[in-house]
Amino acid sequence: MSITGQLQIGQSQVPGKNGEILALDAATGAALPPAFGGATLGDLDVACALADSAFDLYRVTRPQDRAHFLETIALNILALGDPLIERCMRETGLPRSRLEGERGRTVGQLRLFAAVLRDGTFLDARIDPAQPERTPLPRVDLRLQRIAIGPVAVFGASNFPLAFSVAGGDTASALAAGCPVIVKAHSAHPGTSELVGQAIAQGVRDCKLPEGVFSLLFDSGRTVGQTLVADRRIKAVGFTGSRSGGVALMNIAAAREEPIPVYAEMSSINPVVLLPHALSTRAEAIAADFVAALTLGAGQFCTNPGLVLAVDGAPLREFERAAAQALADVPAATMLTPGINQSYRSGIARLKAQSTVETLGTGQAGEPLQAQAALFATSAADFLGQPVLREEVFGAASLIVRCPDETALLKVLETLEGQLTIAVHAAAQDRFTLGALLPTLEKKAGRLLLDGFGTGVEVGHAMLHGGPFPATSDTRTTSVGSLAIERFLRPVAYQNFLPELLPPALADHNPWAVPQRIDGTLAR
Amino acid sequence: MSITGQLQIGQSQVPGKNGEILALDAATGAALPPAFGGATLGDLDVACALADSAFDLYRVTRPQDRAHFLETIALNILALGDPLIERCMRETGLPRSRLEGERGRTVGQLRLFAAVLRDGTFLDARIDPAQPERTPLPRVDLRLQRIAIGPVAVFGASNFPLAFSVAGGDTASALAAGCPVIVKAHSAHPGTSELVGQAIAQGVRDCKLPEGVFSLLFDSGRTVGQTLVADRRIKAVGFTGSRSGGVALMNIAAAREEPIPVYAEMSSINPVVLLPHALSTRAEAIAADFVAALTLGAGQFCTNPGLVLAVDGAPLREFERAAAQALADVPAATMLTPGINQSYRSGIARLKAQSTVETLGTGQAGEPLQAQAALFATSAADFLGQPVLREEVFGAASLIVRCPDETALLKVLETLEGQLTIAVHAAAQDRFTLGALLPTLEKKAGRLLLDGFGTGVEVGHAMLHGGPFPATSDTRTTSVGSLAIERFLRPVAYQNFLPELLPPALADHNPWAVPQRIDGTLAR
Repeated sequence: MSITGQLQIGQSQVPGKNGEILALDAATGAALPPAFGGATLGDLDVACALADSAFDLYRVTRPQDRAHFLETIALNILALGDPLIERCMRETGLPRSRLEGERGRTVGQLRLFAAVLRDGTFLDARIDPAQPERTPLPRVDLRLQRIAIGPVAVFGASNFPLAFSVAGGDTASALAAGCPVIVKAHSAHPGTSELVGQAIAQGVRDCKLPEGVFSLLFDSGRTVGQTLVADRRIKAVGFTGSRSGGVALMNIAAAREEPIPVYAEMSSINPVVLLPHALSTRAEAIAADFVAALTLGAGQFCTNPGLVLAVDGAPLREFERAAAQALADVPAATMLTPGINQSYRSGIARLKAQSTVETLGTGQAGEPLQAQAALFATSAADFLGQPVLREEVFGAASLIVRCPDETALLKVLETLEGQLTIAVHAAAQDRFTLGALLPTLEKKAGRLLLDGFGTGVEVGHAMLHGGPFPATSDTRTTSVGSLAIERFLRPVAYQNFLPELLPPALADHNPWAVPQRIDGTLAR
Repeated sequence: MSITGQLQIGQSQVPGKNGEILALDAATGAALPPAFGGATLGDLDVACALADSAFDLYRVTRPQDRAHFLETIALNILALGDPLIERCMRETGLPRSRLEGERGRTVGQLRLFAAVLRDGTFLDARIDPAQPERTPLPRVDLRLQRIAIGPVAVFGASNFPLAFSVAGGDTASALAAGCPVIVKAHSAHPGTSELVGQAIAQGVRDCKLPEGVFSLLFDSGRTVGQTLVADRRIKAVGFTGSRSGGVALMNIAAAREEPIPVYAEMSSINPVVLLPHALSTRAEAIAADFVAALTLGAGQFCTNPGLVLAVDGAPLREFERAAAQALADVPAATMLTPGINQSYRSGIARLKAQSTVETLGTGQAGEPLQAQAALFATSAADFLGQPVLREEVFGAASLIVRCPDETALLKVLETLEGQLTIAVHAAAQDRFTLGALLPTLEKKAGRLLLDGFGTGVEVGHAMLHGGPFPATSDTRTTSVGSLAIERFLRPVAYQNFLPELLPPALADHNPWAVPQRIDGTLAR
């Protein structure tokens, strides 16, 4: 498949007539051909109409058929071969090994949801049989299953051009649920997006599904995305990106005639808590791991450790010294886009401008479009007094907050907004302290880690990639792992239905062999 | 226990100093002693502080202990005895048999959630064990459970003074989840509310729980409710009431620094579709059942059948005639409050004022505070052209829409907003038509019924009392049945945790014996 610069509207490749998007070489800033045409509102309307008309056909396909569809997409992405990786390297500045890993993760996610579909638990099939003899009133036959919520708008993320983008977790879980998907591609990697979009469109063809199951739109601005979220045919939104972007979509969705759920994964500084005994016994080792986690992928992860909390004293200063020393060896790294690089530099400048913030060390300087990692420190009192210090700096920057005692540390934790992750480093003797912190940690974050860092998000059944606002817009949900499918389902009950009209998952003979809960108890 | 007119703030009965609420005898409009004191914002603050401080203690109680608490509340409500029923009859105008039934339902709901707690599935415990040998990277140990979301504000409903009020489904499911609850009592039945509130507060005492687990506030206006939803310590809201009230709370919750979920069950006209063969063969029988469902409890149910859709012709006219005739025998009924009665009368007058609406029949006229049931008819074209005809008239009024053919009937269905229920009456020969309607029905309502009416909402595992907006604010949820607990839970993941720090539900030795999903598969 070759990159054409065209929109994918169902099965048609359509030249976009609404302005031009240019892919930039992340390392040099040079434009990469071809130019991508932006979608008009007419293109958007066609994509929505196709998705709407595909919905009723697609949502009732057998789960095993949708599983096959997801697996076909996975194979089609692999079949794109090295040209996908090469294009993606140029558009994002990310190294080959990372992108090959991310491709594996993307394919793995599609296959995970195929397994979720074959398992059938996601349908939450429930049967409360009739009790004609019940007194004073007989009980009617009542059955419940979850059905697809409707066409979903997905926004590609800049920092995961494959795993959180066109065929990323949002798309995979929405398609698995039975929802058609319209992706608004991230303008930072349009070529990567088009190739992956072609792989999905090919999967729709391969599996003989209605064409409206998938469309891909480009836009140089915000109009297409905002209009998509406002469109009455769209019933849910998946988004990974900035807090301002996510909140804007939440507001549009809430103001609709029919408000719809927005699943926005936005802002997190992922605090790392270093407890006293861990610091005294292994400050240097933790510092080395910390710097590795901080600078991985130029720090461009939602789970990047942007804040370190510890009680001040010689062990913390030893940690700071070791971290600064390790950081000095870290080469500068190309960031995803010139814009992200600029934001990072502004954030660093903002921290450096605070008289209350000490610069502990930096990584190596590099080319103009490369970013230099940085480590800062401040006091708990200053951190509590200056809200600007709590803002996320997207990239390889972190701020150590020196707390006078554990009470102050807890106080700092309590004032934080919601987080995707909180990591705690603790030795055996820190367990009592950790136990005392745990209730606060649970209320502040979606995932708690011991002796590690939040980077490295496993795609499994027990993953929670979410958290209280503003980490995500909906703390009841995750955007990674098998639970992500629940975002795109809604329950429907069927009362006193004729057996021949019941959905297959609710039939007594259970043709799909899904788990059924009879009167609240799983049947076997 | 006696009615004091005081607020229940944790374990303290406190005289409210912010104005006065008077209970009115629904039948006569006469004031019933005592006067209830409205809560000040200071009272509200104390209740929130108590709830906030109780949260960490309460949410980690063992599920079986919370089950015992719910069962204790159930017994305490029963122990209130006949004075509860008598007070409730006076405040609501509802008959004894209905209120005794509703008390049974309320107690049954509390016991259902006790069973849900003992079952443990609600925790959704998941364990993805470590795979130290996995390549290229070892897999960490990752576990997930759902925890309580935080203190919950519950708004009592006017039309179910027991089952959707102080100890109703919202309170029962929130307490089951591990959330402290602050109830804003409905001003139409303050004495009933206080008695039930005392039964819960007594349960808190009996079970030696922290007092902040429950508080009950009165307010003559909207300030307390709105301030409660805006309070940073409140993390979710349960509401049953008007569309304008629910939307106001949704807007407050969305505008908070930390937006929170609002579960508002609001507006539904519960269409009834009469298919041709059903009409030809049993118009009269359906009409009798319809009039019974329409006029039950003066039509004051969320699931009251406010709209009838059918293809016009002799069988429909026969249904209309039979329904009008049956209606003529229905006595006038006292409504819940003079305000509701006034709204009902305005709604009826509004319909009568439309030249396009024909009055088919009415029930018997009654006292000034009683309402007369009414049945209207219009054409599909007029219905589609006049949005005013689609507005809910809360009470025993219904509108028949005569459709020229099945295409027009489907068109009317498609233009409707979201509904709690849609009922279809179908004979064997209507099955093909029904199958063709089904996709639209599934998209428009939370519960579909064959050959019945939406009134009579079973409290079980397969019940869905919810639906697309504006039936509810969140179509993914139900306010009745065991799934209602999910509204007040959020998942949290624990990575690489020490066994002694893991929550009991996630420990390998599984001390609570809850269902655990290991690598996605339920362990047995």
